[in-house]
Amino acid sequence: MKCDFHQHTVFSDGSVWPDIRVKEALMDGLDAISLTEHLEYQPHKADIPHPDRNRSFEIALKEAKDHDLLIVKGSEITRRMPPGHNNAIFISDANKLLVDDSVAVFREAKKQNAFIFWNHPNWTNQRKDGIATLTDMHRMLIKEKLLDGIEVVNDKTYSDEALRIALDNNLTIMGTSDIHGLIDWEFGVPKGGHRPITLVFSKEKTEASIQEALFNRRTVVFYKNLLIGRNEYLIPLIEQSIKIKTAKYTGNTQVLSVDIENSTNAEFSLLNKTVYTFHNSGELVTVKPGEIVNILIKTKERLPAITLLFEVISAINEPGKHPQITLRSAVTTN
Amino acid sequence: MKCDFHQHTVFSDGSVWPDIRVKEALMDGLDAISLTEHLEYQPHKADIPHPDRNRSFEIALKEAKDHDLLIVKGSEITRRMPPGHNNAIFISDANKLLVDDSVAVFREAKKQNAFIFWNHPNWTNQRKDGIATLTDMHRMLIKEKLLDGIEVVNDKTYSDEALRIALDNNLTIMGTSDIHGLIDWEFGVPKGGHRPITLVFSKEKTEASIQEALFNRRTVVFYKNLLIGRNEYLIPLIEQSIKIKTAKYTGNTQVLSVDIENSTNAEFSLLNKTVYTFHNSGELVTVKPGEIVNILIKTKERLPAITLLFEVISAINEPGKHPQITLRSAVTTN
Amino acid sequence: MKCDFHQHTVFSDGSVWPDIRVKEALMDGLDAISLTEHLEYQPHKADIPHPDRNRSFEIALKEAKDHDLLIVKGSEITRRMPPGHNNAIFISDANKLLVDDSVAVFREAKKQNAFIFWNHPNWTNQRKDGIATLTDMHRMLIKEKLLDGIEVVNDKTYSDEALRIALDNNLTIMGTSDIHGLIDWEFGVPKGGHRPITLVFSKEKTEASIQEALFNRRTVVFYKNLLIGRNEYLIPLIEQSIKIKTAKYTGNTQVLSVDIENSTNAEFSLLNKTVYTFHNSGELVTVKPGEIVNILIKTKERLPAITLLFEVISAINEPGKHPQITLRSAVTTN
Amino acid sequence: MKCDFHQHTVFSDGSVWPDIRVKEALMDGLDAISLTEHLEYQPHKADIPHPDRNRSFEIALKEAKDHDLLIVKGSEITRRMPPGHNNAIFISDANKLLVDDSVAVFREAKKQNAFIFWNHPNWTNQRKDGIATLTDMHRMLIKEKLLDGIEVVNDKTYSDEALRIALDNNLTIMGTSDIHGLIDWEFGVPKGGHRPITLVFSKEKTEASIQEALFNRRTVVFYKNLLIGRNEYLIPLIEQSIKIKTAKYTGNTQVLSVDIENSTNAEFSLLNKTVYTFHNSGELVTVKPGEIVNILIKTKERLPAITLLFEVISAINEPGKHPQITLRSAVTTN
Repeated sequence: MKCDFHQHTVFSDGSVWPDIRVKEALMDGLDAISLTEHLEYQPHKADIPHPDRNRSFEIALKEAKDHDLLIVKGSEITRRMPPGHNNAIFISDANKLLVDDSVAVFREAKKQNAFIFWNHPNWTNQRKDGIATLTDMHRMLIKEKLLDGIEVVNDKTYSDEALRIALDNNLTIMGTSDIHGLIDWEFGVPKGGHRPITLVFSKEKTEASIQEALFNRRTVVFYKNLLIGRNEYLIPLIEQSIKIKTAKYTGNTQVLSVDIENSTNAEFSLLNKTVYTFHNSGELVTVKPGEIVNILIKTKERLPAITLLFEVISAINEPGKHPQITLRSAVTTN
Repeated sequence: MKCDFHQHTVFSDGSVWPDIRVKEALMDGLDAISLTEHLEYQPHKADIPHPDRNRSFEIALKEAKDHDLLIVKGSEITRRMPPGHNNAIFISDANKLLVDDSVAVFREAKKQNAFIFWNHPNWTNQRKDGIATLTDMHRMLIKEKLLDGIEVVNDKTYSDEALRIALDNNLTIMGTSDIHGLIDWEFGVPKGGHRPITLVFSKEKTEASIQEALFNRRTVVFYKNLLIGRNEYLIPLIEQSIKIKTAKYTGNTQVLSVDIENSTNAEFSLLNKTVYTFHNSGELVTVKPGEIVNILIKTKERLPAITLLFEVISAINEPGKHPQITLRSAVTTN
Repeated sequence: MKCDFHQHTVFSDGSVWPDIRVKEALMDGLDAISLTEHLEYQPHKADIPHPDRNRSFEIALKEAKDHDLLIVKGSEITRRMPPGHNNAIFISDANKLLVDDSVAVFREAKKQNAFIFWNHPNWTNQRKDGIATLTDMHRMLIKEKLLDGIEVVNDKTYSDEALRIALDNNLTIMGTSDIHGLIDWEFGVPKGGHRPITLVFSKEKTEASIQEALFNRRTVVFYKNLLIGRNEYLIPLIEQSIKIKTAKYTGNTQVLSVDIENSTNAEFSLLNKTVYTFHNSGELVTVKPGEIVNILIKTKERLPAITLLFEVISAINEPGKHPQITLRSAVTTN
Repeated sequence: MKCDFHQHTVFSDGSVWPDIRVKEALMDGLDAISLTEHLEYQPHKADIPHPDRNRSFEIALKEAKDHDLLIVKGSEITRRMPPGHNNAIFISDANKLLVDDSVAVFREAKKQNAFIFWNHPNWTNQRKDGIATLTDMHRMLIKEKLLDGIEVVNDKTYSDEALRIALDNNLTIMGTSDIHGLIDWEFGVPKGGHRPITLVFSKEKTEASIQEALFNRRTVVFYKNLLIGRNEYLIPLIEQSIKIKTAKYTGNTQVLSVDIENSTNAEFSLLNKTVYTFHNSGELVTVKPGEIVNILIKTKERLPAITLLFEVISAINEPGKHPQITLRSAVTTN
């Protein structure tokens, strides 16, 4: 499930009516979105003095009704640091979150069974060094199960330190666009760019199923061609994305020709970790979206089957670390 | 100097008249080429029974006379393994190389002051496993100073093992197209591909200067976006190619904004090796040809100058190893 | 001056906040825009119950304050046919246009010195056959000088019949986007499309000067690569856009080589109307945006100067008719 | 059948071995080619002193043997004007055409049952004004049935006057590349260009059938997106190329929405010649290769079927004239 759970419209400080957010999501092939208006920050209030904080959700829901797109009700709890900004999604009533106390609002969201994540912990407006750092309040929120996830990617930023926090504290790894203007402009979509999204490994395309997967940390973030997540979801994802299509020996040689197919929209950068060297490239192999790349492998003898090991440097499983994938295939004899 | 010293025309087993090779070189912006017709393999002999083996060179020389392109006289000594195929370039008369004995021909070439390199030591026609391996005869040729270089790249192949041989035996690292058909077709030039070339670090654009540089091992090979060479030539080349254009702090933060400019036609893949993490990407940074990439660096305090370290994974200095570059810049205060 | 005087935002039935309209205009290089909210049609009223109909203008004005973009105050008078929808621009107060009577509102706009034009007279919601037809009320409005212009182009439609009405009744020829969603999506801008605009031939880049030019009918509409206007503005415009760059005889022949340069963003389709035939093409010549096209002209004798006549079939001066341009140049002797 | 019957290799004054011509033809999807070496002009004779003038053909035939490409034996009779250069194709032995007398060589070719056409009658080397003009000798050749066709297109030139000669003298309209270098370079194929070809309307893909079609004038030339030919072959060709895909009324209006599909690689420029005007464009409609273009037609009443008439200005049936096509379709009611 491709999800973007942090977005704004004219109902807080965004520049579009909710219908545009629905159309953008459909164009980008998303499965679920949430319009998370700021509860406490309402710069258009003079023009849009609506008393109901669920309004943005309702308009989007109506716009999406004939499409296969889930609209999740959510709000952005907008406070100074700590606890900074946090999104509560899968809530039932945004109006009830208009609570002064910074902790009480988390409890109210949880009463509504919300999934709550910490937004842009690396935001330079609240952390001048851009380095996500856990505060005592965040430790308390985590301990009391009031905080479930953390944005490792927000808009055009990625935080190694937020990833560290997610791994150390068993938080869900989140990536969102936090869009205020237009997705196409902000992320250069017409020129091949894409918004940051959270891939959620849910069993079904339902709100309940996505929520369950989020609570159980089953996510991978996709940001500027980079996949970020825990090995247990990241490695199977990549091994599903890149596959050996054919493997056969060329002529009467011991050089094995392997076609590797990338069935996704992401470009993968792979470093060879087998003992064999390649006949047509160095150890770095790049597989562009939708492309089939041919690798010639000097196996020294004719093997009945091939096992390739690659370090995927366009993926991150820990700060500064990359997952290793295994591709296996029988060898065709011609 | 961009050089391609292994090419064929109708005067051995190629498919074009020499003028096409000159035009291709001009289109590709090369500085020097050699048309190295096979001395012993002449499949078009029935149609082209020319007695003079310098003919191809002469036609090319005439075609190039109004252009800034050096045509180097050369021939391919075409034998079984060992010693396999070898190119002798900067010769004075190809006809005199029509010598039966496989070693005597090297001596004759050397008498003409040739620079000699071993072609495609990984060729599967002569090595079924594609693994370049030094034979006793090659050891002798090297010892007697009859062999100066080795193709680490030939056509669409790269050999880690040939690179090992070059480094262990102090041979010049060579890369050539070995073109028989059309450069555009073989290397997909209109779609952004390029032929393999040898970058020769000569003092001047003269034959003598290029020859001197080749004898002194001053080369880097450029193949499918990969730079292959010895650190002493490779690292300065990359540090000239990629430069810090500007470095300044954003707003009142400790996040340093650095613009890195790639002034070349190669795409560089860089891995961050500083202690600082990046605010807008993981450790992998890709800089496309001619592109300026912005990196936001979390330096924790405001630095007066910045030193960036990158492992260049799109370059090879030893089999399976990559050079590390250092980019330095003062920091502008705004 | 590139102008788009018919646009909507969330303040009537559009989907964006006014700042997006300003950004779109800047991206498209426009000189002046007007946000012409419907006075009588306010579907977002429940959410945006603003009493001031100038609000959209004010927000845009603030957004544009550091840019060289004129924001013209305007409103769409939204009535059944007749008189249908009409835009009043260069008004001083939109609120005063909230007048019930369909004619009285025109008088009020005129009291404010408005330029008024009839919107989409070909709109199939109001004319099932799509054929713009003058009603008695329109004749009266024209006669009483309450109607100044007519949209010959609206959104993705063009009307030959509206052009006829404009010419027969001395109305200003207008073309507008009538945008409600996003310009990029509606007109495929990233794929090379463009919004319809009105080119206004004003003396200065001021509101007063543009208004004067509109009152005096000095416009050409640019729509899907098509230029539509009166000969007196259309022909000089095209003759400024397409010019002979060089003209010289080839070798010792009587074949004149002429380079024609298109300095605009429009593609021109030209039919040769001279007595000479071309050596390298038939009579149809297409000059793409920014392109230089070479024409070889068989002049039979060596001429000291050349005069080329072309029918510009990508321009319209009357329904089903095209202007003829004249390109002149001295001939260089080499 | 896509044919190019005028090409050169190293066996006269071209720059490639015949195998390249075969590969180029396969890449361009041609059905038949002829390598028409100059009989009398042999600049590479010193290097290629072959006595057999069929040699080029034989090498190409061997190269093409596993492909579905017909190689037609031909030669270029290379004389001063008159009669200038003429190609004789479908000959049995080129050697026998080495005849001094300019008319006798035509008779010998005809004895071999050749199809003979006049090459580049507009060539400025032989006609300084570039204007194809029939000489007495040509009139005699035509009268004696020694000349069958004429190049209206050669390389990068088109001749209105040659088309006039073809029509007035019942000659076959021919278009050829007359390639000496590389097709890709000469005609910018990687950037979307194409070589000039002759479309031959033969019953089968055999030499005999193509020859029969040529003798019976069943050709259309395709040159820089321009189709040139007699109405009887040109109009059906275009009507096969451009078709109405769907036609239905929009909503409850009298505006008919028609999708026109261009199934070819040519771009068509069409001028509306029906009495109806269009709702979304002027009278000029451009249909790019492979594109579907939507036209909205104001039919005033709901028609059960639609007949569209277009003047195809990207096609030529006589000097300065364009064919008119008719597209018919039933109208779907929704």
